[in-house]
Amino acid sequence: MALTTRVEQILSWYAAENPGTLTNLVRLFNHGALSGTGKLVILPVDQGFEHGPVRSFAPNPEAYDPDYHFQLAIDSGCSAYAAPLGSLQAGAARFAGQVPVILKLNNSDTLARVEQPISAVTGSVEDALRLGCVGVGYTIYPGSGARNRMYEDLREITLEARRKGLVVIVWSYPRGAGLSRQGETAIDVCAYAATIAAQLGAHIIKVKPPTAHIEQEEAKKMYEKYSIPLQTLADRTRHVVQATFNGKRVVIFSGGESRSTDAVLADVREMAAGGSFGSIMGRNAFQRPRAEALRLLSDVIQIYKSAR
Amino acid sequence: MALTTRVEQILSWYAAENPGTLTNLVRLFNHGALSGTGKLVILPVDQGFEHGPVRSFAPNPEAYDPDYHFQLAIDSGCSAYAAPLGSLQAGAARFAGQVPVILKLNNSDTLARVEQPISAVTGSVEDALRLGCVGVGYTIYPGSGARNRMYEDLREITLEARRKGLVVIVWSYPRGAGLSRQGETAIDVCAYAATIAAQLGAHIIKVKPPTAHIEQEEAKKMYEKYSIPLQTLADRTRHVVQATFNGKRVVIFSGGESRSTDAVLADVREMAAGGSFGSIMGRNAFQRPRAEALRLLSDVIQIYKSAR
Amino acid sequence: MALTTRVEQILSWYAAENPGTLTNLVRLFNHGALSGTGKLVILPVDQGFEHGPVRSFAPNPEAYDPDYHFQLAIDSGCSAYAAPLGSLQAGAARFAGQVPVILKLNNSDTLARVEQPISAVTGSVEDALRLGCVGVGYTIYPGSGARNRMYEDLREITLEARRKGLVVIVWSYPRGAGLSRQGETAIDVCAYAATIAAQLGAHIIKVKPPTAHIEQEEAKKMYEKYSIPLQTLADRTRHVVQATFNGKRVVIFSGGESRSTDAVLADVREMAAGGSFGSIMGRNAFQRPRAEALRLLSDVIQIYKSAR
Amino acid sequence: MALTTRVEQILSWYAAENPGTLTNLVRLFNHGALSGTGKLVILPVDQGFEHGPVRSFAPNPEAYDPDYHFQLAIDSGCSAYAAPLGSLQAGAARFAGQVPVILKLNNSDTLARVEQPISAVTGSVEDALRLGCVGVGYTIYPGSGARNRMYEDLREITLEARRKGLVVIVWSYPRGAGLSRQGETAIDVCAYAATIAAQLGAHIIKVKPPTAHIEQEEAKKMYEKYSIPLQTLADRTRHVVQATFNGKRVVIFSGGESRSTDAVLADVREMAAGGSFGSIMGRNAFQRPRAEALRLLSDVIQIYKSAR
Amino acid sequence: MALTTRVEQILSWYAAENPGTLTNLVRLFNHGALSGTGKLVILPVDQGFEHGPVRSFAPNPEAYDPDYHFQLAIDSGCSAYAAPLGSLQAGAARFAGQVPVILKLNNSDTLARVEQPISAVTGSVEDALRLGCVGVGYTIYPGSGARNRMYEDLREITLEARRKGLVVIVWSYPRGAGLSRQGETAIDVCAYAATIAAQLGAHIIKVKPPTAHIEQEEAKKMYEKYSIPLQTLADRTRHVVQATFNGKRVVIFSGGESRSTDAVLADVREMAAGGSFGSIMGRNAFQRPRAEALRLLSDVIQIYKSAR
Repeated sequence: MALTTRVEQILSWYAAENPGTLTNLVRLFNHGALSGTGKLVILPVDQGFEHGPVRSFAPNPEAYDPDYHFQLAIDSGCSAYAAPLGSLQAGAARFAGQVPVILKLNNSDTLARVEQPISAVTGSVEDALRLGCVGVGYTIYPGSGARNRMYEDLREITLEARRKGLVVIVWSYPRGAGLSRQGETAIDVCAYAATIAAQLGAHIIKVKPPTAHIEQEEAKKMYEKYSIPLQTLADRTRHVVQATFNGKRVVIFSGGESRSTDAVLADVREMAAGGSFGSIMGRNAFQRPRAEALRLLSDVIQIYKSAR
Repeated sequence: MALTTRVEQILSWYAAENPGTLTNLVRLFNHGALSGTGKLVILPVDQGFEHGPVRSFAPNPEAYDPDYHFQLAIDSGCSAYAAPLGSLQAGAARFAGQVPVILKLNNSDTLARVEQPISAVTGSVEDALRLGCVGVGYTIYPGSGARNRMYEDLREITLEARRKGLVVIVWSYPRGAGLSRQGETAIDVCAYAATIAAQLGAHIIKVKPPTAHIEQEEAKKMYEKYSIPLQTLADRTRHVVQATFNGKRVVIFSGGESRSTDAVLADVREMAAGGSFGSIMGRNAFQRPRAEALRLLSDVIQIYKSAR
Repeated sequence: MALTTRVEQILSWYAAENPGTLTNLVRLFNHGALSGTGKLVILPVDQGFEHGPVRSFAPNPEAYDPDYHFQLAIDSGCSAYAAPLGSLQAGAARFAGQVPVILKLNNSDTLARVEQPISAVTGSVEDALRLGCVGVGYTIYPGSGARNRMYEDLREITLEARRKGLVVIVWSYPRGAGLSRQGETAIDVCAYAATIAAQLGAHIIKVKPPTAHIEQEEAKKMYEKYSIPLQTLADRTRHVVQATFNGKRVVIFSGGESRSTDAVLADVREMAAGGSFGSIMGRNAFQRPRAEALRLLSDVIQIYKSAR
Repeated sequence: MALTTRVEQILSWYAAENPGTLTNLVRLFNHGALSGTGKLVILPVDQGFEHGPVRSFAPNPEAYDPDYHFQLAIDSGCSAYAAPLGSLQAGAARFAGQVPVILKLNNSDTLARVEQPISAVTGSVEDALRLGCVGVGYTIYPGSGARNRMYEDLREITLEARRKGLVVIVWSYPRGAGLSRQGETAIDVCAYAATIAAQLGAHIIKVKPPTAHIEQEEAKKMYEKYSIPLQTLADRTRHVVQATFNGKRVVIFSGGESRSTDAVLADVREMAAGGSFGSIMGRNAFQRPRAEALRLLSDVIQIYKSAR
Repeated sequence: MALTTRVEQILSWYAAENPGTLTNLVRLFNHGALSGTGKLVILPVDQGFEHGPVRSFAPNPEAYDPDYHFQLAIDSGCSAYAAPLGSLQAGAARFAGQVPVILKLNNSDTLARVEQPISAVTGSVEDALRLGCVGVGYTIYPGSGARNRMYEDLREITLEARRKGLVVIVWSYPRGAGLSRQGETAIDVCAYAATIAAQLGAHIIKVKPPTAHIEQEEAKKMYEKYSIPLQTLADRTRHVVQATFNGKRVVIFSGGESRSTDAVLADVREMAAGGSFGSIMGRNAFQRPRAEALRLLSDVIQIYKSAR
């Protein structure tokens, strides 16, 4: 399949990568309904681990089955499907080659009380290769007292993934004693989190949609001094994209908590307008009945198509 | 030995495994009185380490001898025998090939005071191979502040076990500062623990029989909103099986503390009715005199046979 | 040298070991005055490290010299000599092949204040091989909050020692915040400590002579319920032997603090009567003048010879 | 290109290095406007990671783009460009061979609250080789309770970098519970920090311009007893150069916070007079508009040229 | 060069070492003014790291230059020169082969506040080989809560050094929460520290000159019971030599803080009379003007020559 100009442009920012990683980036950008557009819509399903089974799947019990999500990702035309080791281990053979797959390499549950949030490393680059993945995913919590451990584990994983031609996607979710609850999605913190992930060598970065709140006093002074527009979600998305190597790293946004279809689509429209490279949408997809989920994902895909 | 349809179906869920692990799964499912049924009854003996010798073996002093348990597992028609390094080291040569053996790779004693429960790693995949085992066992304590260390140690072990064709059985026992005492066997926690083990890549998962208590507020809302039946142990077993990849991972249940034969069998009947893949029964077996133990295990096996 | 029936019986419990380890077990059991009896008397000298030089050697200044202990072990007909790296490094070449040697792989000094007792690893299997040893020794402190670290270090050492055909001797000394001072030598704790060492894969286990005190409430109930005799040291020795895989692992007893010759011999007689596999006697030997030490060791050996 | 006498002299202090490292030292000293002078002006850009994007780049938004800094380093005639993994990954292929590049191997963000400051290791020697770098950079915080961890990580990195012929540049920034805020730039502390970096095996050392404050009582006595001149920045620079192996290790000075051009140049003049081997100037360069930045760097370079 | 009887005798205590280490021991004992005497005078210079540059070198500014110390060690006829990585890296090529060199592998600075003293590992056996050293040096702090970490790091280093034929010299400096300030040089503690170093496998041990203070109650009883003479420094030296494997390990003494020439020489005379194998003298040498230092070292050497 010939590359579109846009995909060629994106690849040009990754010129220092080896052909293995470039190949997997192309597999990602040339799959599904957004193939060739330079946009991505990814289905991530790690809520079973992160929030427990009943909170994740009771609204749509078919979703207890790992195969369900593979099929949803395929049928909806998503760019990729991302999940922890167990889920992929269960379906990777059956669905081999039908959708780009991303192995999520660390996870956290909500059963323990912890002071400094940190996810456990639950998979490896070897597992990702064995399971036919295009890449690996890893979550960091900037703001946590345990962030250095996470950055350093990521460093090891990224080094190995690069050697072996995989794509590295970093979920950059600020959290921990260094931040207020509101600060976790503050625009300054979100932009900072995107920068950190880019500097750590991520190929693709996932952040949460930023609010207009500003957490750090020093940052506030700069936003005011230089009158940086932050009012709309489109404005804030634009700022995050700029903070991610001036747009030279792919940054995508999560859908957040499950909400009404209209609210979800309104946010996606704003983010697309602000230059987002796409969305990663879990609960809003799989917690709806399958037909509704397919319609929502289709609408999201359509927004990104029009945004070109 | 040809595979039964049921065993073939079970194997289909493990299609991403290599032939080595599939072979060992077959060795497990095609051994003993339940051969070919897709059900398992396993004899585990790690109480000497976990509770000390006198509490474990005084009721039936023959059981001080590691050979006793091998013979009991063989004569009762159990699917497998699981024990720590020392016990297997003592009997593995004498009983080589007579019963599938599982090396328990971590253990905890009750002599020290600890804040965050965690077992010590006491064996290795290399030991399991050397001793002719079909698989390895590992205990995690979701709810403990040390859970990440356990998940990560398990990750290493699982990776190596997979490479070398062994089966991985995870004892998922919620425990620690994140949970009330009652919460350790709560239905939401038990289902969550099964999901975590499945996501960590376990082939077979062992949990405790869940009570009707619900520990987490967020989970409670969902159980109520979707009217999920939790009244009988059969209901709760069904929910745990669903939470374990919708039944696509083998989940078995422990027998709990030693009790009357009737109580034990009543529970097993409920769990079998709820779709349990089997039981793992230690103290209730080896703390009875040998004849009684053989009778009890035979009755348990009979229940699972009828449950097909 | 042909094996005696007793040594053959002992070897039968170690059938899962490779020929290298079996060879070294034979070297141990077929050396010295107790050759072929299945009993062991070992001279251990790590007090210089553990208690400091003046407390260890001032009573008999010849003992400052590492060569002294090699010669004492040889001349007394002991089964083996055990010491830390430095001592063996000093004499191993000169006395090569004259007495089985055991490298003690961890040690603790009394100069620092510590909350959770743990010894430092001070030698390696490679050192033991290089120095011509039959085996390695390692101390664990069940009851310490640092016990898992010790068990896991021991696991690594045991794995390597087994691969390379060495014998592993574990000093199992309960100690730490989980235990009262009196509890360190309580019969339940001592039996538990022997079980733990056996389960960790030790070939030979060394414990302290147990007192009639019972530390753990749960254990007490069992001793009472089953009327287990604990009155004499012979009774208690018998119980420890039973707790050590029903006598299928070699368990030997230390001599404790230096005391009168009569007291020492009385204890040894009791332990021999209770089925002890032997004694490991340090201070009571090397802190006496050489002639006295030779006489004492000869008397101890004689007791074990008669105990057959 | 033939070496100048001065560069030959500098190389003579590194005679124990292998030809690979000597080659990279020459690449550094023979590049840009200061080629052959034995002086260095380096452009470092890690503020995106260290202070966040908006605080770093809002004053000059072109600087959000990693390519901007490569071009600035090239066009200004700087000796080298230093940045974290992500920035180099983005531009290293496009600008390959146009300017010596230094991979900064550890970084710290300001989102978390920490007791003992320490940077995360975010890159590796392998990355530096892969990206065509002449060397690696590493920050230590003498004064931090975590300094030993930093020294030991640096040791590993230095060992590998030496083996593979790279130059090691250490940012020695005293910080932590052992020091007052004022003490971080005190002359005694700064000189001590330079010594530590030199002893750790750094080829090039970067410190902050020292103030006349003296932090440690013991040091104060010596400065007074021997009447060491510390009044001017030139004096203090001279002392730091002396403390860095009597001038036999290359020590360069940072520009500090962004300030007026005059203030910056005045400081550089003093440092050049005191024998500094050069400057490393980040914020004062890239936060100015490009034309201004080029003028400032040109002026700084001119000062060092005249200082020969 | 033929060996003297004394050097042959010393070598006989190291018969378990491989020829590589024996060769390096000979290089040490057959160099300089004390060649063949079995005595050593070593010049150690790590004060730049340990106390900072100004406290170390202001009294004699030539000493800021690493080359100065190489030359001093050569010209004074010292047996060896010991220093950290950076110092050796600076001069090892220029002075290659002119004096035996010892790489000090760990170091501590005084800029941070620490609870449990421990030095950072700052060099490696590979560095020592690369730099042509005869051996490596390592400091332990018995009495520190971090002592086990130090002993275990030393174990790794010693194992590798032995494999590669280097000599291991241990600086055994009691320090930490387990000891009073006065206790750090107490005779019982000093003798204990020497024993620990010997047991850890050191070839050469360096301790501080012991005072007549006794720190540990249990030790005091023994000194009194056996009337061990401790009054003069010669007495105490004799006791330390005895505690170091009855004189079968080389133990040398540091010079302590810089003091008057007479005081230094008086102490050396006492220690030589007590059987010390030599002195290791840093500050008292390099903080004096070169001519004075040469005279002092010459006098010290003369004392040891006469002590034969």
